[in-house]
Amino acid sequence: MNGTAPSGIVTLLTDFGVQDHYVGVIKGEILRRNPRAVIVDITHQVPPQDVQAAAWLLASSWRSFPAGTVHLCVVDPGVGDTRKALAAEVCGHRFVGPDNGFLTHVLRDCDEWKTRELSRGDLFNQPVSMTFHGRDIFAPIAGALSANLRFDEVGSTLPKPVELDVPTVGVRRDEIRAGVVYIDRFGNVITAVTARHLEWTGMQPGEVVVAINDAVIDRYYPTYAVAGNGPFFLFSSGGWFEVAVKNGSAAEALNIRRGDPVVVRRRA
Amino acid sequence: MNGTAPSGIVTLLTDFGVQDHYVGVIKGEILRRNPRAVIVDITHQVPPQDVQAAAWLLASSWRSFPAGTVHLCVVDPGVGDTRKALAAEVCGHRFVGPDNGFLTHVLRDCDEWKTRELSRGDLFNQPVSMTFHGRDIFAPIAGALSANLRFDEVGSTLPKPVELDVPTVGVRRDEIRAGVVYIDRFGNVITAVTARHLEWTGMQPGEVVVAINDAVIDRYYPTYAVAGNGPFFLFSSGGWFEVAVKNGSAAEALNIRRGDPVVVRRRA
Amino acid sequence: MNGTAPSGIVTLLTDFGVQDHYVGVIKGEILRRNPRAVIVDITHQVPPQDVQAAAWLLASSWRSFPAGTVHLCVVDPGVGDTRKALAAEVCGHRFVGPDNGFLTHVLRDCDEWKTRELSRGDLFNQPVSMTFHGRDIFAPIAGALSANLRFDEVGSTLPKPVELDVPTVGVRRDEIRAGVVYIDRFGNVITAVTARHLEWTGMQPGEVVVAINDAVIDRYYPTYAVAGNGPFFLFSSGGWFEVAVKNGSAAEALNIRRGDPVVVRRRA
Repeated sequence: MNGTAPSGIVTLLTDFGVQDHYVGVIKGEILRRNPRAVIVDITHQVPPQDVQAAAWLLASSWRSFPAGTVHLCVVDPGVGDTRKALAAEVCGHRFVGPDNGFLTHVLRDCDEWKTRELSRGDLFNQPVSMTFHGRDIFAPIAGALSANLRFDEVGSTLPKPVELDVPTVGVRRDEIRAGVVYIDRFGNVITAVTARHLEWTGMQPGEVVVAINDAVIDRYYPTYAVAGNGPFFLFSSGGWFEVAVKNGSAAEALNIRRGDPVVVRRRA
Repeated sequence: MNGTAPSGIVTLLTDFGVQDHYVGVIKGEILRRNPRAVIVDITHQVPPQDVQAAAWLLASSWRSFPAGTVHLCVVDPGVGDTRKALAAEVCGHRFVGPDNGFLTHVLRDCDEWKTRELSRGDLFNQPVSMTFHGRDIFAPIAGALSANLRFDEVGSTLPKPVELDVPTVGVRRDEIRAGVVYIDRFGNVITAVTARHLEWTGMQPGEVVVAINDAVIDRYYPTYAVAGNGPFFLFSSGGWFEVAVKNGSAAEALNIRRGDPVVVRRRA
Repeated sequence: MNGTAPSGIVTLLTDFGVQDHYVGVIKGEILRRNPRAVIVDITHQVPPQDVQAAAWLLASSWRSFPAGTVHLCVVDPGVGDTRKALAAEVCGHRFVGPDNGFLTHVLRDCDEWKTRELSRGDLFNQPVSMTFHGRDIFAPIAGALSANLRFDEVGSTLPKPVELDVPTVGVRRDEIRAGVVYIDRFGNVITAVTARHLEWTGMQPGEVVVAINDAVIDRYYPTYAVAGNGPFFLFSSGGWFEVAVKNGSAAEALNIRRGDPVVVRRRA
């Protein structure tokens, strides 16, 4: 036996939206390879072509699934140019998508991984279209992997997948410098700062303030329910420092966008 | 054997939207407990924190599923405060969610029910987050109940679940007083008045008018297809009096909101 | 054995949206007839009552599913009037919905088909509502067909289903006249012209221009990735001539709507 037995589950993460037939077609192509596949939508509302957002959403969801799950991630601005197609096996999970960096966070999270290029044309829908590799390449491979295709059979070795340029987190004694990594539909602002970063500084949540753009947020509450009015920070369910407004949008109230710089520092 | 055998189906009703990864994560946590679960979205577009809407949507959908189905309903403005977490067994169906009244209509609809508090920390994701009990408490319990966890094993008895303050329907000889309970995406206005209420008054649909706010709707048609222009009323597919505009939005045309008072009375 | 063995898959294509409980209810009714059904959403965002769009989306997706799949298509402006309800068996696939022309493209695509009227009241939810045949007629039949109901048992023969008025494609030596058949969520404009039409004229993609309304698009690129700025045309993943703008909306840029006339002609 090579690697982990498949769970039969295939997750989908795309920017195709749910208005057209594109996602349905991908599901059909998976089911043609594995009629017993259990297909789960993570989301299809990734902002168009936004591989950074896709990479973060994937990192935030894959561990909730059982080992052996296949994660299909198709946010593919480079379809039709020279970008490669890849599959990865990471800590017993499998990932399939264009080689554009969508695995950046996942690979940093796991020591044990291998990647292969999808080079087996006999496994694709032929002729492969120029613009919809989700249907013609990625769905067929994901479907086959969720059934009985062995990982090593998807193609040739791909030693170094593309990495996204992800802002680093700088931790010093009394200060953490990072950035905004995601803004969710409620307008909650999620930063790259984790509880572990804070531990390294020796500070407690009640001892710090969070500065983003011109705003300094100095109230910490453990939950939305007990928060007062105005912006505050908390630890998100994913373990990140998050800036929120109870029953409102922190991103709107403070005019924050993804990528904005964040400083967590000792309260004056 | 205790209660009904599980159908393996888990329905989901939340206000998480479908833009982020939250719903996908919940599905993963269910599948980790029961890889054979069949998960069905009712909707994730409940208006944020609107437990009244969730309660009505649940009441309008649960009977379409087979006995043994687990219904997960997470619209949870109180997450992180002192609200309890519950499971209920009602007429052979199971329900899981925060104890905030989401079961109000379902419990009135069925004589035979029992409720328990979710007090078995060993069944949760540990550590339980402060802000995402959907992932850490409700999904694990729903997944386990859809497999082989017996209902009585989810926790201690909870004698009296929270009830929402639901407007009553007042029926007199020539008049029914009620309110608007839901407005759907087409702008159809659904009231708390049912065919049974009308029967009690002895009036026929053609003998009444429906007054909401300043409007008096005096045309009854059995279907949208045969309706003329302008607002009319009909019996909705759920059996309620509904005010509609063919190919348009009655809620917009008449400026109606949920909770507005409704009077059905004998035509003058 | 009659016809193709069911795949157990049921696809859904409706205009019900995903805000209310209507789609969840349909899925429940399918699962009550076949608890092992695998249900796949094509989309529920068909523009309300737009049978033309539904017919095109169905034609663009059904072949991605295995033979034996049941395709439920409910865009039903005529519910409650005299329109019939039908099932069809086409090239080993089954289709269920109102007899309003939604099968127009599918039937032209296949020589071998038969249709039946859904006349077996004993298979429906009784009493059948006046306004929600998706729940009371179509879902029960789709669920039963996906399990073990034989196609010929759904009702009496229906010799001639309704056909939509679909604009024809006129091919001459140096010119193809057709129309816009669909605009997707990216604003890509899909026309009725296919690669085969172009072959008949003997022209190559690089030898033609595409005229829609007042615009003449004279740049052809094989993919979005290699396109320059401004509108261009390519072959869509479905094989149609498509007008697009890289990282933008061609429909907005050129003010194009479905149904607008299209002329492909030899470059001057």
